[in-house]
Amino acid sequence: MLSEKLQKIYDAAGADALFLESDFLRRYLTDFYSTDGFVLVTAEVCTLVADPRYFEAAKKKFKNSRIRVEEGGIKEALSLAEPYHTLGVPYPFTSVSSLRRYEEAGHSTVDCMPAFRSAMLVKEAWEIDRIARASEIAEDAFNELLGDIKEGMTETDVAAILEYYMRAYGASGTSFDTICAFGENASMPHYETGARKLKFGDPVLIDFGCKYAGYCSDITRTFLFGDDKCHEEFKKIHAIVLLAHELAKERIGAGMTGRQADAIARGYLESKGLGGMFTHSLGHGVGLQIHEAPNLSPRSEDVLEDGMVFSIEPGVYIPGVLGVRIEDTVRLADGKVRSFMESTSRKALIIL
Amino acid sequence: MLSEKLQKIYDAAGADALFLESDFLRRYLTDFYSTDGFVLVTAEVCTLVADPRYFEAAKKKFKNSRIRVEEGGIKEALSLAEPYHTLGVPYPFTSVSSLRRYEEAGHSTVDCMPAFRSAMLVKEAWEIDRIARASEIAEDAFNELLGDIKEGMTETDVAAILEYYMRAYGASGTSFDTICAFGENASMPHYETGARKLKFGDPVLIDFGCKYAGYCSDITRTFLFGDDKCHEEFKKIHAIVLLAHELAKERIGAGMTGRQADAIARGYLESKGLGGMFTHSLGHGVGLQIHEAPNLSPRSEDVLEDGMVFSIEPGVYIPGVLGVRIEDTVRLADGKVRSFMESTSRKALIIL
Repeated sequence: MLSEKLQKIYDAAGADALFLESDFLRRYLTDFYSTDGFVLVTAEVCTLVADPRYFEAAKKKFKNSRIRVEEGGIKEALSLAEPYHTLGVPYPFTSVSSLRRYEEAGHSTVDCMPAFRSAMLVKEAWEIDRIARASEIAEDAFNELLGDIKEGMTETDVAAILEYYMRAYGASGTSFDTICAFGENASMPHYETGARKLKFGDPVLIDFGCKYAGYCSDITRTFLFGDDKCHEEFKKIHAIVLLAHELAKERIGAGMTGRQADAIARGYLESKGLGGMFTHSLGHGVGLQIHEAPNLSPRSEDVLEDGMVFSIEPGVYIPGVLGVRIEDTVRLADGKVRSFMESTSRKALIIL
Repeated sequence: MLSEKLQKIYDAAGADALFLESDFLRRYLTDFYSTDGFVLVTAEVCTLVADPRYFEAAKKKFKNSRIRVEEGGIKEALSLAEPYHTLGVPYPFTSVSSLRRYEEAGHSTVDCMPAFRSAMLVKEAWEIDRIARASEIAEDAFNELLGDIKEGMTETDVAAILEYYMRAYGASGTSFDTICAFGENASMPHYETGARKLKFGDPVLIDFGCKYAGYCSDITRTFLFGDDKCHEEFKKIHAIVLLAHELAKERIGAGMTGRQADAIARGYLESKGLGGMFTHSLGHGVGLQIHEAPNLSPRSEDVLEDGMVFSIEPGVYIPGVLGVRIEDTVRLADGKVRSFMESTSRKALIIL
């Protein structure tokens, strides 16, 4: 028998069986960590096919559960799938090579990702708890980092310390490559952290996050390392971006589309003449993936609902001069935004 | 005009143009870091399509180069590709969703991954240098870690310290989730690092690696944390695995198949009655990806050549009891194996 959640996905997919290779969907259905493996879902049962490296651990974990475990690789998984003609596979996470293999084995396929996407959009309580923990770890690490930052450190040094604290506080890893940009480097929103050394007065932008039990957090803070009185424009823009961030949090609500949500921050930045410098979308869903549904962007028709988790991250970038981004991971509850970020300051903190 | 390397790939692919979305292939062709983007390769020119987040950095990097930079996303990239009927796309790294999008735009596709795979199999000098640096960072971090390990630390603590040193020594991140397993946990070859605390006498298995300028390293060491005289079987098996490791290094040579290479270590472990406990393959290629060609496994017909980089990692696992794996990243030069690992001990080190 399938769990209620899985039954719904199975029914919505309209396939004889679901056949899953991708890491995060395997994790979503089984909460079992592995770098390889297959999950076959039929009307009756969910089977995890684990290779010898993971078989022992999987057998132990699913001893008294509805999930069946078989040993093997792609060959064994496809042989279990043989009786089922139409396989539901997630098209965005299935390679053309895999598709060809299924077709050669005589299967036709349909895309089951829409069914998963609907199921995964609204998080369950245990998923919210994990994202909250991933957020708490990221914030604790950031606060600890602030005491360690010193003149002469490189961007890489600062990223290394931050990642160490996240790991030491229980994260299994980062949810993406940490971005740490000093001074004018922050004007490239997805700058590759490098060897630039920190100087007195530098603006610092750090975009980071970690994974806890499979789930991600995502947060950006921008601040000054000492006040050299030469960064008045930075302070002005920081204040505007912060207001855009706060407006978005205050006004985004259940029932709104991603487009409407994005327009709140974008409209405010436009009113300040900075619309053209907000070069990305307001936010993205966060869960097992660092980028998932819903989208908060000028073209998104995703309707926001209670239980959805997403980032709110307005930013302003003046090429070669400065960049400011302020980002929280948040959820919708009782129709309103509630941030997972509770302990880090969003202000243009001046640290010394 | 295309570079010589790229010209060869283009010619081998047999397509009107190559259309690449995947991160590591974009990096291979342009050495530009970005989390999104497109590369279009025609008979005349290689164009990088970068979105606003990366456009400024890309324009700067390719100012005086053969690589052209355009601003945009998938729409702009597909519009540049419009005149070219057959697109070469890497099937193992192209999603079914992307394939459908190309087909809807009127293109047919062929798999260009075989052409990339041949080109990437044999590393150039600058690629070898980066893998060497990624290996050196990993080894320096491990040696530093040995001085910090204390009774009562968790597996996660140890992984966090190791990853911190790798980052601080210049790695951009790990090349995979660090595996740190104490005692009987090491019997699961791909164990998820957890909260088990280190006790006097514990065997410790650490499988780790980092990325430097896009390229990976991969290394495993297994040792004892103090000698409680209760781990004689561990010591015996460690000595056998080490011999299998050394035999493989000594005897693997250019011209051999991956199957023949694997058989050297496997045959030796079988002669000791441990063949059934070597539950994975001997090694895998290492480069921009942590797992790539060539394969050193019982079924691999890949022919080993000078300039190839791969892991050598024999292991023996007794479920619930112990696990030993000893892994170096190596290359073939002058027909023989040369290890990138120069400063860490492979012995059953006893540390206190």
